[in-house]
Amino acid sequence: MKSYKAMSKEELQVLKAELEKQYEEAKAKGLKLDMSRGKPASVQLDLAMDMMDVLDSHSQVKTEGGMDCRNYGLMDGIPEAKAFMGEIMGVPADNVIVFGNASLTIMYDTVSRSMTHGVCGSTPWCKLENVKFLCPAPGYDRHFAITQHFGIEMITIPMTADGPDMDMVEEYVNNDPAVKGIWCVPKYSNPQGYTYSDATVKRFAALKPAAEDFRIYWDNAYIIHDLYEEGDQLLEILSECEKAGNPDMVFEFTSTSKISFAGAGISAMAASKKNLDFVKKSMTIQTISHDKVNQLRHVKYFKDVNGVRAHMKKHADIMRPKFEAVLEVLQRELGGLGIGSWTTPKGGYFISFETMDGCAKETVARCKEAGVVLTGAGATYPYGKDPKDSNIRLAPSLPVPEELAQATDLFVLCVKLVSVNKLLEQ
Amino acid sequence: MKSYKAMSKEELQVLKAELEKQYEEAKAKGLKLDMSRGKPASVQLDLAMDMMDVLDSHSQVKTEGGMDCRNYGLMDGIPEAKAFMGEIMGVPADNVIVFGNASLTIMYDTVSRSMTHGVCGSTPWCKLENVKFLCPAPGYDRHFAITQHFGIEMITIPMTADGPDMDMVEEYVNNDPAVKGIWCVPKYSNPQGYTYSDATVKRFAALKPAAEDFRIYWDNAYIIHDLYEEGDQLLEILSECEKAGNPDMVFEFTSTSKISFAGAGISAMAASKKNLDFVKKSMTIQTISHDKVNQLRHVKYFKDVNGVRAHMKKHADIMRPKFEAVLEVLQRELGGLGIGSWTTPKGGYFISFETMDGCAKETVARCKEAGVVLTGAGATYPYGKDPKDSNIRLAPSLPVPEELAQATDLFVLCVKLVSVNKLLEQ
Repeated sequence: MKSYKAMSKEELQVLKAELEKQYEEAKAKGLKLDMSRGKPASVQLDLAMDMMDVLDSHSQVKTEGGMDCRNYGLMDGIPEAKAFMGEIMGVPADNVIVFGNASLTIMYDTVSRSMTHGVCGSTPWCKLENVKFLCPAPGYDRHFAITQHFGIEMITIPMTADGPDMDMVEEYVNNDPAVKGIWCVPKYSNPQGYTYSDATVKRFAALKPAAEDFRIYWDNAYIIHDLYEEGDQLLEILSECEKAGNPDMVFEFTSTSKISFAGAGISAMAASKKNLDFVKKSMTIQTISHDKVNQLRHVKYFKDVNGVRAHMKKHADIMRPKFEAVLEVLQRELGGLGIGSWTTPKGGYFISFETMDGCAKETVARCKEAGVVLTGAGATYPYGKDPKDSNIRLAPSLPVPEELAQATDLFVLCVKLVSVNKLLEQ
Repeated sequence: MKSYKAMSKEELQVLKAELEKQYEEAKAKGLKLDMSRGKPASVQLDLAMDMMDVLDSHSQVKTEGGMDCRNYGLMDGIPEAKAFMGEIMGVPADNVIVFGNASLTIMYDTVSRSMTHGVCGSTPWCKLENVKFLCPAPGYDRHFAITQHFGIEMITIPMTADGPDMDMVEEYVNNDPAVKGIWCVPKYSNPQGYTYSDATVKRFAALKPAAEDFRIYWDNAYIIHDLYEEGDQLLEILSECEKAGNPDMVFEFTSTSKISFAGAGISAMAASKKNLDFVKKSMTIQTISHDKVNQLRHVKYFKDVNGVRAHMKKHADIMRPKFEAVLEVLQRELGGLGIGSWTTPKGGYFISFETMDGCAKETVARCKEAGVVLTGAGATYPYGKDPKDSNIRLAPSLPVPEELAQATDLFVLCVKLVSVNKLLEQ
């Protein structure tokens, strides 16, 4: 196919008229499709329904050590759930606290606690003039929402296929004591699906932060969420930090939200003993214990990390055709046109699309007008502001493959139309 | 029986020798009993085990409106759980947010949010020189722990059988803009088991706070936890506040921790729309939703408030003999001696005991030495400091009645011994 940029004004005008016609026809179809959020489909949730049977009215709802999961106590989680979540993260149970149903809440609480109580004895951030977080972008909108909510200044760090631009990360972290954290989704990053390279992880572990209370916020949300037999490999960050002499530099987060149930899973934090001891000081004021019955339910159902791996293959069988349906349309319709590029992740929940500069907002708006909801353009950047207005996050999990093909057909049509208009303006 | 205070030195000396002998005998028994925390007994948790069967692998885990409880969404709770928790509190579903398994966490988060974001637009408390909370005492140690954790100054307000000393409450709240809250357990208060009178509730509702961001923290933990057919009656605070022209003045908290499972129940907050809208602004950053599967489980099991009432009668059948076992020993052994007084609650989880001034710590220490753990003396006061060193909280829920009689036998022995020593000092 001929690149749009190689076309003459006249050719573009003809194309525009044709695309406008197609768009009007598409609008007339009255689509109602949603590719906006990383929400599992019902069939994925069905996969774990047998978990509802592992505890019944005749069960001993007790830990192996004999503690009653129904009662108060065991604030940091039942021992078997700590071991289970530790296995998933590749860290010892002693480095794990198991929480409630949402790792987002752990992250929010971690930042909130730092605001009011600092980190391991540092000055509470609310007493400081300046607190900054590094935000690799495109990234996860809910991360940026947390830092924005607390008035923390966000600094955009460009993403590469190997992870964040580490030259820039080192420059900021090692020199600016106001930089207290960096948001990372190190495996199958949101939205690009990139996995940090070994070199990137090692450079993270070797940071020499100017701030004693700087921490890496390592949101390992897609830690075991491969689409293919051969998944990406990510170095385990806690041991890398320890090896590099920075044992306390990282808070890792994960959950079973996209393993068991999005709304009723269990979540966990991994960190050094020093960090966890500090976290527990606040936790003991905030709660008596999280829902240990649900922790036990998870452990009894999945047994161990191998149980999770087997289960995730079933998820992959549902997710893979969806990703492939989207990618097939993108390649067929946009390949060679020079008006967009996209990622081809081997796991996670998203495909990231780059339009020509200045075309993302208009493309999302056009899609919406014709009945396909995408994540708001800009959402993948701090303050919701994509400086080049070019990134669009596609979330293929919720619709079925046929719907996805329809939605993506419309999407590529809108990309073409908006691109043509942009080129005609120039 | 002869009052100890009427005894001569010689009589007290003889008594002391006899009590010391009894105490040594008691120690030799090697008791290991715990009356320290308001923890339900296993048999109470067993009462709700059928809840484990209401959802199984074949269930439609959906709300009446068709929302999938397993997935993300419905941040403020499923509609039927809002209605259910609202029914328990006597407020409309619209005034309710349903949370996770712990109302303590809601309270902590509410104070934490006020520190960083103020209340409904007021200055964040962390930016203020002075923030004070009124603490009716004796009261709940975990309330005091929250305010202490955030560096909030605590002012002790004496408790009466009708609730806090309202003259003092009005004096502080209506005049001091640094007073931002008051901790209340309005029904079967912790530890005295007092229920606020109608007059007290109406005076609360009619407060004219100097601070716009003053709120009543109404922890209705024992809202439906009667020991007898005829329970105490408490006026519903939200409507009273509304009638008095103060619709936004109260945050109410409750949970099913002592209805279903202490570690795996559901909790809720009730407040005005304005308050809830403000809370939701932070919640939308902090979480996507709480565990709605567990919310559905609760609603399907209990159906409505009548289901809860019927269930609580079974709890009462277990708890009543325990309270009565303790009270029987107290009355038999200490009645008329003039060395202690105690409350006789019709519900809740505690009996409050007043020793002679200066005897609580030593009594608790003596009990511990002989194998009976009580709540630490002082715990029922802000900063853990009981000014008269006289209050001891007895928590009869965990041991069986026979153990309770044993434990209380030891307790009264220690009260006698410590009192005699105190009288001999004078």
